[in-house]
Amino acid sequence: MTTDSMRNTAQDPVQHPAQPELLGLLVQAVGAANVLTDPDVTEQYRRDMQPLASAGRPLAVVRPASTSEVAAVIEACTRHGVAVVPRGAGSGMTGAANAQDGAVTILTSRMTAILTIDAAAGYAVVQPGVITLDLIRAAEAAGMFYAPDPTSSDWCTIGGNLANGSGGPHGARYGVTADAVLGLEVVLASGRVLDTGRHTIKGVTGYDLNRLFAGSEGTLGFITRATLRLSRRRPALTTAVAAFASVEEAGRAVTDFIATGHSLVLLEIMDRACFGAVETHLGSRLLDEGGTPAAVLFAQSDSGTGVELTAFEDAARANGAILSFQTDDPAEGEMIMGYWRGLEAALETLGTWILHEVTVPRDKLAALILRAEEIAAETGVFVGVHGHAQDGTVHPMIVYPAATAGASDRARRAYRLILEAALDLGGPVTGEHGIGRMKADYLADALGEVGLEVHRAIKAALDPTGTFNPGSMFSFSPEERRTP
Amino acid sequence: MTTDSMRNTAQDPVQHPAQPELLGLLVQAVGAANVLTDPDVTEQYRRDMQPLASAGRPLAVVRPASTSEVAAVIEACTRHGVAVVPRGAGSGMTGAANAQDGAVTILTSRMTAILTIDAAAGYAVVQPGVITLDLIRAAEAAGMFYAPDPTSSDWCTIGGNLANGSGGPHGARYGVTADAVLGLEVVLASGRVLDTGRHTIKGVTGYDLNRLFAGSEGTLGFITRATLRLSRRRPALTTAVAAFASVEEAGRAVTDFIATGHSLVLLEIMDRACFGAVETHLGSRLLDEGGTPAAVLFAQSDSGTGVELTAFEDAARANGAILSFQTDDPAEGEMIMGYWRGLEAALETLGTWILHEVTVPRDKLAALILRAEEIAAETGVFVGVHGHAQDGTVHPMIVYPAATAGASDRARRAYRLILEAALDLGGPVTGEHGIGRMKADYLADALGEVGLEVHRAIKAALDPTGTFNPGSMFSFSPEERRTP
Repeated sequence: MTTDSMRNTAQDPVQHPAQPELLGLLVQAVGAANVLTDPDVTEQYRRDMQPLASAGRPLAVVRPASTSEVAAVIEACTRHGVAVVPRGAGSGMTGAANAQDGAVTILTSRMTAILTIDAAAGYAVVQPGVITLDLIRAAEAAGMFYAPDPTSSDWCTIGGNLANGSGGPHGARYGVTADAVLGLEVVLASGRVLDTGRHTIKGVTGYDLNRLFAGSEGTLGFITRATLRLSRRRPALTTAVAAFASVEEAGRAVTDFIATGHSLVLLEIMDRACFGAVETHLGSRLLDEGGTPAAVLFAQSDSGTGVELTAFEDAARANGAILSFQTDDPAEGEMIMGYWRGLEAALETLGTWILHEVTVPRDKLAALILRAEEIAAETGVFVGVHGHAQDGTVHPMIVYPAATAGASDRARRAYRLILEAALDLGGPVTGEHGIGRMKADYLADALGEVGLEVHRAIKAALDPTGTFNPGSMFSFSPEERRTP
Repeated sequence: MTTDSMRNTAQDPVQHPAQPELLGLLVQAVGAANVLTDPDVTEQYRRDMQPLASAGRPLAVVRPASTSEVAAVIEACTRHGVAVVPRGAGSGMTGAANAQDGAVTILTSRMTAILTIDAAAGYAVVQPGVITLDLIRAAEAAGMFYAPDPTSSDWCTIGGNLANGSGGPHGARYGVTADAVLGLEVVLASGRVLDTGRHTIKGVTGYDLNRLFAGSEGTLGFITRATLRLSRRRPALTTAVAAFASVEEAGRAVTDFIATGHSLVLLEIMDRACFGAVETHLGSRLLDEGGTPAAVLFAQSDSGTGVELTAFEDAARANGAILSFQTDDPAEGEMIMGYWRGLEAALETLGTWILHEVTVPRDKLAALILRAEEIAAETGVFVGVHGHAQDGTVHPMIVYPAATAGASDRARRAYRLILEAALDLGGPVTGEHGIGRMKADYLADALGEVGLEVHRAIKAALDPTGTFNPGSMFSFSPEERRTP
């Protein structure tokens, strides 16, 4: 990874053929104003939010406005042997949407229509460039609830969520983006349009192509429309917070709560490193005395009854919580959640932050946090852990002074050590962010030899020309196809 | 379909090569006692529960006891150009596990181990021949809950549930079998073993192979082990029943209840034809006067609060229910559910029954039931509808006198008309039973040209020799592979 990312720095641009004929076709397809080739302009589309991932220099960045424009662009690229990189808002943390040398990056920024909200039947139909929060709000306005809630909901797009199978705090209770997919429209490498749609809750007609494309990180096709499940909005949220003097106690409180069988709409954990940064940034302390707690749990329920939060408080108190408080007052709830929401702004003041993602079995949360503390000491960078306690997916935050010599390498080392700690604890390579460029080195081991060959066979079947996002997820050239 | 099923009747056995070398290898792999070739013995494995589906005559029926035995059998078959048909208990209703002329049917009846129940981490690891109810009970004994509940749970197998993506009444609230899959072990056509496993709630490493194999109806590989999600058992069930003088009122009660945002662990609808048959069979009437209701709704909650059933009763009464009753007494609950459970035994006395499966948008339930009444009149066979009101998947029951000339054809006509009615109402070809042989004619239309080519490309990628279940789901020969 290091070699690769060093090769693709801005200081060492790779030359690629000019492709005047292809550029002409792209202009024909989407209009000259929507074919960006000036490096000063395309620079902003080269990277996502992951500072450690490699990125190339695109031939062009194009902005189609419709499925047929996307199809024309992709068909032309495939015919000219040029790869395409689908890109949403660029909020990803794996480099999956990073530019590829000589490839065409296709944006969804002009495909932002919410086409249908059908409250009675319980689904929405959207274009891929719709910002997740816009869908959540449109659903709310129709009395409905769109559950998947990546932390970057206020600027990430549905297309990116679909490509990466993104989740968020709601995941354990309501499922992640892939769980919401009822149907997709996908442009394939040939430029042909695949429709996988249904509008009913159940459906098992043929292979589950919805799930094959969701989470495929733009390596199989370009999603141009999605039918997504909506549910009815439940009663107002009630909120609780509990603080602990040790990480182990917080971990046991989570395990005990899960054992009750109840589930919360949100159950987030934050360790001392993260919570302390927030307290400092807000200038406000949760505890009157005793300093910053070792771990804090945030809990929210939407059941309309007190059952879940009472079970949560019981679990917290039985495990030595030094603070436990719940409220059904929305303003108080917002005040509590302000600590949770304040994290990124707090870390922003400390340096360049990386939102890592690892998943562990839910009873291993405390072990992971303690290991993260050791890794911070070993590498000399800030590491703080927060995340979704109910499903074991957490986001270790690595903060480092990017301008300081060697700091990037230390951050990269921390990134790898944290991932390996999660793998040691029985976790998968990725729980909700995907592989992208950051975790590609780990994929072959995780899939095993047969698994990797199955991946290559599927890739060859659906994208035989290797058109889609060749720099991401796993290395593939058509010659590599073998029978699994 | 008619032609096909007529060709493959017992009166007209198709000859196939004897394959002595392959049979020798099968005996080597699983032992002579587990290679069944006597037609009198293999007869019982030729068909599932669908009397209208075609079935061939197998070369052999084999009973492997382990993954390595399955691998040896499949490797030998592929090398000899002989197809294999995976078969669980034979409880399916689509003919998907029916014998194929000259093929080897592989049973899971000796792979019945529940290998792990991990209550803390929330999963079970099982072999495919485990009977679903055995897993449900083993989970219960460990204080856990395995949610998927096909109606045939007391004899169907996990392997069959996985192959068909089976669901049941719990589906809308807890998901279907595919939703419970965390990992699979699958023997591919080459005899190589693929492991797709993870043990965490979230995981998006690579393509979603769990979902590709789940519901693939044995056309891509043979599932030899599954890691399945368990959740904590919730409080005891409370039960309600509501009866209506019109189907439309019952349909509106369902729609209104769903609109509250609450969900039930079970919400089943039964029309007059079905409910009347049960009342006659049990010798017991639900209503003291007024005869058999036009529709009955059964509801169960496991939330431990009265909220959901109260919302259900409100919806029922607001829509003119002529009876509405709820109870938290388990014995009373069992008595109510006795009407629901009594259906198959009741229909058994009326003739040969077919459990059909169609799915419609949830607000179209009443329309489907009314159309089913018309179809009964048009075809002269009994048609009664019951099913899962919360997700729109219902099971029209067709009952006919199989020995009467022409009755099978009338039943087949009713089957097709009901399916077409559901498609007209916006449903998929299948919601939870799969395509098999019964709905294969409808698949090409449902998938569209590109969708069918994508299916063929995936089939060719994973089963290039066409080894797996060639008679089911969709026609495929390796030559048919095209780039989608």
